[in-house]
Amino acid sequence: MKTRIEASLQAALEGVDRDAPPRLRAALHHAVFPGGARVRPRLALAVSGACGGHPPGLALATGCALELLHCASLVHDDLPCFDDADLRRGRPSVHKAFGEPLAVLAGDALILLAFETVARSGHLAPERLPALMTLLAEAAGPARGLVAGQAWESEPEVDVARYHRAKTGALFVAATRGGALAAGADPQPWTHVGMRLGEAYQVADDLCDAHATAESAGKPTQCDVRNDRPSAVTRLGTAGALARLQDLVAEAVEAVPACEGQDALRDLVVKIAERLVPASLQHAAA
Amino acid sequence: MKTRIEASLQAALEGVDRDAPPRLRAALHHAVFPGGARVRPRLALAVSGACGGHPPGLALATGCALELLHCASLVHDDLPCFDDADLRRGRPSVHKAFGEPLAVLAGDALILLAFETVARSGHLAPERLPALMTLLAEAAGPARGLVAGQAWESEPEVDVARYHRAKTGALFVAATRGGALAAGADPQPWTHVGMRLGEAYQVADDLCDAHATAESAGKPTQCDVRNDRPSAVTRLGTAGALARLQDLVAEAVEAVPACEGQDALRDLVVKIAERLVPASLQHAAA
Repeated sequence: MKTRIEASLQAALEGVDRDAPPRLRAALHHAVFPGGARVRPRLALAVSGACGGHPPGLALATGCALELLHCASLVHDDLPCFDDADLRRGRPSVHKAFGEPLAVLAGDALILLAFETVARSGHLAPERLPALMTLLAEAAGPARGLVAGQAWESEPEVDVARYHRAKTGALFVAATRGGALAAGADPQPWTHVGMRLGEAYQVADDLCDAHATAESAGKPTQCDVRNDRPSAVTRLGTAGALARLQDLVAEAVEAVPACEGQDALRDLVVKIAERLVPASLQHAAA
Repeated sequence: MKTRIEASLQAALEGVDRDAPPRLRAALHHAVFPGGARVRPRLALAVSGACGGHPPGLALATGCALELLHCASLVHDDLPCFDDADLRRGRPSVHKAFGEPLAVLAGDALILLAFETVARSGHLAPERLPALMTLLAEAAGPARGLVAGQAWESEPEVDVARYHRAKTGALFVAATRGGALAAGADPQPWTHVGMRLGEAYQVADDLCDAHATAESAGKPTQCDVRNDRPSAVTRLGTAGALARLQDLVAEAVEAVPACEGQDALRDLVVKIAERLVPASLQHAAA
């Protein structure tokens, strides 16, 4: 599955490799490769598979688009005017390596490439595109998606649950619902799996920020306290956050609807969850 | 036509008005209203009309998307790391009024809203979406679109024609080709109209930068010389640039293919062109 996802991401950059200004091209490759766990596309493909999986190309494009939108948000979140992070996935962040102008443009480009990727696979099932494209735009968008989540940080008053649903949850929900939509299935039964996984991911991210070193995390840590950001660790303590994480993963597994690939999908959810806990806390979580 | 375009842009912000963080919502309205001449959506609607104009909703969504992509590029181009412009359309630029974080997010949001707008009208003719969405993503994209144009400014060596085709031409070509595609017509005969108009627009922009005051232009002028950017005025002189502008407009008019609305469309091209020349040079252009 991982190989197909990497190949699809490479293919998404084909036009860039052919025609883009060389420094932007390098910045885009830096932003996308090597990636993290590619959790969102794996989830989309798994759900699509559980729903019959036809046409496979549309689910792959959907997963690839979600990963590109995720990469876009990382590049922009790292900018000096937001987190001012020098490190990402163990290497210099895009603005550190290529400067601020190319980091702004790389983020914009990744959003556009996400939609181009789905558009280019759209001929496989054009009647599914309106719902699929709306889902992707909303998941990253300013009302309840990624951009909204980041923008809540500029507000004096924030509802923490709403902030997390937008900043982390929206792309997970889009992964499960999008996988179903790409396969022509009803997305509704898949909403809860994505929601619970998104919440689990946020708690894990908070644990990682509080307990991992920058070296093991591949990005700056201890940011939540420094930036006075809401965190499950400050709210529940480390043990409480770990317990919450395990509950959420159990709820995600439980929420997988009856379908042909139910067991395989439950295994994937557990496997994704295992990677979420920082190494230094693995014994506590065992 | 103008009223329909404004209404469609307002509708594109409906989700934002309902759910977005309040400061981001304000930044987005500031970025889109009041707009400029809305040249790109008017062009898309006119071409669509000349091609039969069905379904009208899809052409309107396409034009609206082009305008949102245009607004996104203005917001990001004005950022301190690019043009550092305090003024846009006679008012503070978005980053000046709302700060850099919200300006970055507003630009991202406008790109996403562009695709959401077309996706939401996609049910009108789903089979046209793959080509239409690909066209929009490429017109703004990193290979040969807006983002590529802006990124060429970060390169040591630039082919000026290629730079302008990406930075200004791509959205004009997308307006004429997109109008045709939205109406289910062959986009090919419309490419040249868009290309020539895009070139005319670039020359007019160079003339405006060199000869208009910031007050009459509503944005900083004299930027090309200061930033050592290629300009038709430095290359051809003012009289030469004016002559070139008139030639390009004549070529755009000439390129309008035989169709039912040919005369009306030619009139629109001339009307758009008349607005392009800075007031202080109108006598020289007469």
